[in-house]
Amino acid sequence: MFFASDNAGPVHVQVMDRVIAANADYAMPYGNDPIMDEVRQSIRTAFEAPDAAVYLVATGTAANALALACYCQPWQTIFCSPVAHIHEDECNAPEFYTGAAKLTLVPGGDKMTPDALRRSIAGEEVRGVHGPQRGPVSITQVTERGGVYSLDELRALTAVARDHGLPVHLDGARFANALVALGCSPADMTWKSGVDVVSFGGTKNGCMGVEAVVFFSPEKAWEFELRRKRGAHLFSKHRYLSAQMAGYLQDDLWLTTARQANDNCAYLAQGLRAAGASFLHTPQANMIFASFPRATHQRLHDAGAKYYIWEGTLEGDDPSEMLAARLVCDWSVDRAAIDAFLAHFQ
Amino acid sequence: MFFASDNAGPVHVQVMDRVIAANADYAMPYGNDPIMDEVRQSIRTAFEAPDAAVYLVATGTAANALALACYCQPWQTIFCSPVAHIHEDECNAPEFYTGAAKLTLVPGGDKMTPDALRRSIAGEEVRGVHGPQRGPVSITQVTERGGVYSLDELRALTAVARDHGLPVHLDGARFANALVALGCSPADMTWKSGVDVVSFGGTKNGCMGVEAVVFFSPEKAWEFELRRKRGAHLFSKHRYLSAQMAGYLQDDLWLTTARQANDNCAYLAQGLRAAGASFLHTPQANMIFASFPRATHQRLHDAGAKYYIWEGTLEGDDPSEMLAARLVCDWSVDRAAIDAFLAHFQ
Amino acid sequence: MFFASDNAGPVHVQVMDRVIAANADYAMPYGNDPIMDEVRQSIRTAFEAPDAAVYLVATGTAANALALACYCQPWQTIFCSPVAHIHEDECNAPEFYTGAAKLTLVPGGDKMTPDALRRSIAGEEVRGVHGPQRGPVSITQVTERGGVYSLDELRALTAVARDHGLPVHLDGARFANALVALGCSPADMTWKSGVDVVSFGGTKNGCMGVEAVVFFSPEKAWEFELRRKRGAHLFSKHRYLSAQMAGYLQDDLWLTTARQANDNCAYLAQGLRAAGASFLHTPQANMIFASFPRATHQRLHDAGAKYYIWEGTLEGDDPSEMLAARLVCDWSVDRAAIDAFLAHFQ
Amino acid sequence: MFFASDNAGPVHVQVMDRVIAANADYAMPYGNDPIMDEVRQSIRTAFEAPDAAVYLVATGTAANALALACYCQPWQTIFCSPVAHIHEDECNAPEFYTGAAKLTLVPGGDKMTPDALRRSIAGEEVRGVHGPQRGPVSITQVTERGGVYSLDELRALTAVARDHGLPVHLDGARFANALVALGCSPADMTWKSGVDVVSFGGTKNGCMGVEAVVFFSPEKAWEFELRRKRGAHLFSKHRYLSAQMAGYLQDDLWLTTARQANDNCAYLAQGLRAAGASFLHTPQANMIFASFPRATHQRLHDAGAKYYIWEGTLEGDDPSEMLAARLVCDWSVDRAAIDAFLAHFQ
Repeated sequence: MFFASDNAGPVHVQVMDRVIAANADYAMPYGNDPIMDEVRQSIRTAFEAPDAAVYLVATGTAANALALACYCQPWQTIFCSPVAHIHEDECNAPEFYTGAAKLTLVPGGDKMTPDALRRSIAGEEVRGVHGPQRGPVSITQVTERGGVYSLDELRALTAVARDHGLPVHLDGARFANALVALGCSPADMTWKSGVDVVSFGGTKNGCMGVEAVVFFSPEKAWEFELRRKRGAHLFSKHRYLSAQMAGYLQDDLWLTTARQANDNCAYLAQGLRAAGASFLHTPQANMIFASFPRATHQRLHDAGAKYYIWEGTLEGDDPSEMLAARLVCDWSVDRAAIDAFLAHFQ
Repeated sequence: MFFASDNAGPVHVQVMDRVIAANADYAMPYGNDPIMDEVRQSIRTAFEAPDAAVYLVATGTAANALALACYCQPWQTIFCSPVAHIHEDECNAPEFYTGAAKLTLVPGGDKMTPDALRRSIAGEEVRGVHGPQRGPVSITQVTERGGVYSLDELRALTAVARDHGLPVHLDGARFANALVALGCSPADMTWKSGVDVVSFGGTKNGCMGVEAVVFFSPEKAWEFELRRKRGAHLFSKHRYLSAQMAGYLQDDLWLTTARQANDNCAYLAQGLRAAGASFLHTPQANMIFASFPRATHQRLHDAGAKYYIWEGTLEGDDPSEMLAARLVCDWSVDRAAIDAFLAHFQ
Repeated sequence: MFFASDNAGPVHVQVMDRVIAANADYAMPYGNDPIMDEVRQSIRTAFEAPDAAVYLVATGTAANALALACYCQPWQTIFCSPVAHIHEDECNAPEFYTGAAKLTLVPGGDKMTPDALRRSIAGEEVRGVHGPQRGPVSITQVTERGGVYSLDELRALTAVARDHGLPVHLDGARFANALVALGCSPADMTWKSGVDVVSFGGTKNGCMGVEAVVFFSPEKAWEFELRRKRGAHLFSKHRYLSAQMAGYLQDDLWLTTARQANDNCAYLAQGLRAAGASFLHTPQANMIFASFPRATHQRLHDAGAKYYIWEGTLEGDDPSEMLAARLVCDWSVDRAAIDAFLAHFQ
Repeated sequence: MFFASDNAGPVHVQVMDRVIAANADYAMPYGNDPIMDEVRQSIRTAFEAPDAAVYLVATGTAANALALACYCQPWQTIFCSPVAHIHEDECNAPEFYTGAAKLTLVPGGDKMTPDALRRSIAGEEVRGVHGPQRGPVSITQVTERGGVYSLDELRALTAVARDHGLPVHLDGARFANALVALGCSPADMTWKSGVDVVSFGGTKNGCMGVEAVVFFSPEKAWEFELRRKRGAHLFSKHRYLSAQMAGYLQDDLWLTTARQANDNCAYLAQGLRAAGASFLHTPQANMIFASFPRATHQRLHDAGAKYYIWEGTLEGDDPSEMLAARLVCDWSVDRAAIDAFLAHFQ
């Protein structure tokens, strides 16, 4: 009954098999391995972007910080949600990698609205040289509260960015989960919707530690390579990153694992709803925030269930009675564990 | 016949087996996995350092840059060899991670001498607030030219640092190869010789991508953790780093693979010497620089041998006739390949 | 009728006279001039702080950014008002000088409240290594909206900081105006109220370009000197900074000019109130925000009055009728200009 | 008898008079004062560069570091002399402002030679993404040893830079002294010789604290403005910087003061030579390095003469007998002081 995070589960066997298969003989280091050629081709095909520049790093924070640094001058500010991972969970890595840029938190919840974004942008760069200058817009998809921007929502945001000539970054640590939820194509959810660069997550969805950074136009490619090396994120034995990503993309494994995670999470949500729990955010992908009685939490805890208690209570709930949980379904979670979890609600 | 680098070979099966074995169920992320406890204990035991703070990262550049940053203020300068990896091959990563410190290149060859180091240190911090302030001394063991500092040489260098109150970093990307060459203990080659922090390499000696940073006194531990996270080098699925290092340390595999690499390199050197080649640097570990006729290079090239042509000729050699090669023996190289290589000298 | 800012007025003759007097013969450079000894002594006396470390720089942004950098690690966050100068008007200088720290904007108006500060502090450093760590609290006195914290208010804020072990910086670009408004001593408004370091402004109150940074305990002194030099803020012909500050402190000129500015501003405010204007913020020092009819603005504009139109309208005001002005009284403003300004309200 | 530095002398009366004259009424802040228009025009005229972007800062280090930062990416390296001010005397300011770039010290003396520069450039950027990338060439004119590059020498260096597509910065802290020594035009010594940006010094030659940064093509102008503000080097009461520079340029004062300094230095050198002293570097501008007996040093010291003892002895000199002095003539030095100094040699 492990629902603490999708960064704590195992690697999918297909990914591991590619890693094992890669482990023979010599391979040119630093991204010049032949498996990387396969990866590059697969991603370009999947994204319908034959000119895309594709790079691999091992952590989501590296993907975000390096991608943003390519589009953000040190005197600029990045527009993002107040609960964005880049703001709350990266220990100032975006500030570090951009050379000390600022983050402007667009007021509201986990999802930015076009109006709020527009007002935030309007609020910066009005003091000439004195204030920070406007930099990229960073959108998280799936959001930190388990929400998924519809294509219309996404396009409304990127339109605001485009109106001001600002580049758009998509933090896709859970890219596949969002894609499966929307049922659209990778191109739809990125460049066709106005995204310039995406952090395409693998780690949370069946890999060991690999994320792709995909630039839809190649003009930042060389700068990224230098920034990656300077950031100490270029792997010598790069083939093991390539192999993970190759296994992840092969036969659309990434969509299969994401679908599993989302479906299981929907099943969990349904069970919780049936058991009387309510939700702080509408369940859409593989992460939900459910409120239920403290007594049930106690039973779950005693039975060894793992998840994070979440601050905040639903309007109308009595906090002495009710408590919220963040529940994340890893791709590897099975129905038995969910059923066992739900059994404690009866 | 692959002698280009020890960063291009495969992962040892014992390391891979631990990675595969780690791949079950859930494990707490971000270094809180139980395998990391094993790793920490093994390294403390191996180094006879029960209080050592031990951390894992995936690249040697990250290990070096993060370790140095803990001991170097932005207005200081790091003393190192002019051919140090941190100077020549890390695309300004040490400068980046230290917040813009300088590197002072101690004049001489790949090995620093105590006199040259003393003069370099004397040359800095003589202009009060105007010049850079003295920072850490960074020593590379095995050096970039395949040399190994004896314990006496090491201690003479660290004594100079200690005289000036400067901390000492050891870049041990090839730590095991040096240790095996010296036949001393890890403690002898580090804290007993005045080293404060070591980058303990795994990648080049049988791992996939893992290096330990070992602090012999723990006062920088928390700072390192924050710097690692901020640098985007903290792995969520950290168990796969831990597993590599655990497999590497288990039953002294790391010494076995290093011994293999060194022995094979000695065998190669002996064969080359017998064939009339001469050496730009005395062979000591698993990397040698041999000068031999251009015609032989041509035959080797035609036969598919891989290695780097090296700039510089031995005194007395005619550069139109003779050319140098850098030859590195990976832990995995076999005698057959060496014999095949040597066969082209006849 | 110049009310645009107190950074656009002339230098007081007493300050200029000291600059002229300093202009003879040679003086040791880089802060070793004898006038600096006088300045150091005067500030220590004025602040009743015999051990204070005192330094001069030429801009308020340099004073703030350098002072904060001495108390803020790159992975920390600075707590400040959402309208703080360090956030809105320094083009990311604090981020630059701290090595990429973050600013946490304490919700509310220009004045931070202890409760809001406490909640902001509570909101950070709850995610271990993942989020930013808590750094210094920066308080602006006079605030950016012309407000003055009472000693009780100041102490309530610094008590919150002290509860969390956080250092306190005071941005005193208008230090003298606040002091005169409160009628307390410099010690009262700083170290006796829990302030660790103050940016003590001179430029806006009669100087040419000089600010002192005063550390009430000297442990950051040498670090500040190195940071100042590294930031290119150490003057070779330092005596001209010293001379300004010496003239400013001599015979309490700084209090005289501040009193003039505040008194004239009070006179202006009284006249505006009498003429029916209302205030967005209670007038307390030398900067006020008054709302009055657009037609009056037009008359003032036509007559050549200089001031900034301010966004935001008072509740109840009709924005098509009423418009706000930011009006700042420089130390040098005279009653005639104020009377001329007020005449347009009739 | 003050020969310690040209950063310790007084301000020329013409400069001071302009500062005093500027001290009336209000002036728009932050570089929007009308005197800055005059300065901009004067510099464009003096340099025959109608499109030049012209900015003022208060210190030479700021001028150098900000100018270089506009032309140097963080992963690049700046080519300069091993005794360049940017390397030895700016406490890592260029590293700080460039975001952690490196400095490559071109082997040789204070003057770079084209061959040495070419070899240094050839030595970098040969390792792809691994090493630092080639950045700007920075030339110091007058050099740190009092030398002056001829136009031919200058052009030979910039030709090497141009061959590699590298921008050229001129550190002209003593620009006027070099110009007077060469007898050429400002355009000759800068853009006509391949210089892209110059730090045009005022402080050492009669000003209080002002340096111009002159870009010969304006594409970096806005970036410079942002970097200057972010670096806390934009003055609010900017008119006092403008006034200094206006006074400095007026009626070619800058050439007059430089000529005085150089002529007096030549007179001093001649006297020293006549008294039997020898020179470590050929006297060319206003700074010389003379070797003479320790006994004479003692007499001078007892008489209160101020100058720096210089390390290094001339070949053939007995260090127990002879000692070197660095002697700098400020614009304000008078013949009487020189004669008094020389009197001690008899």
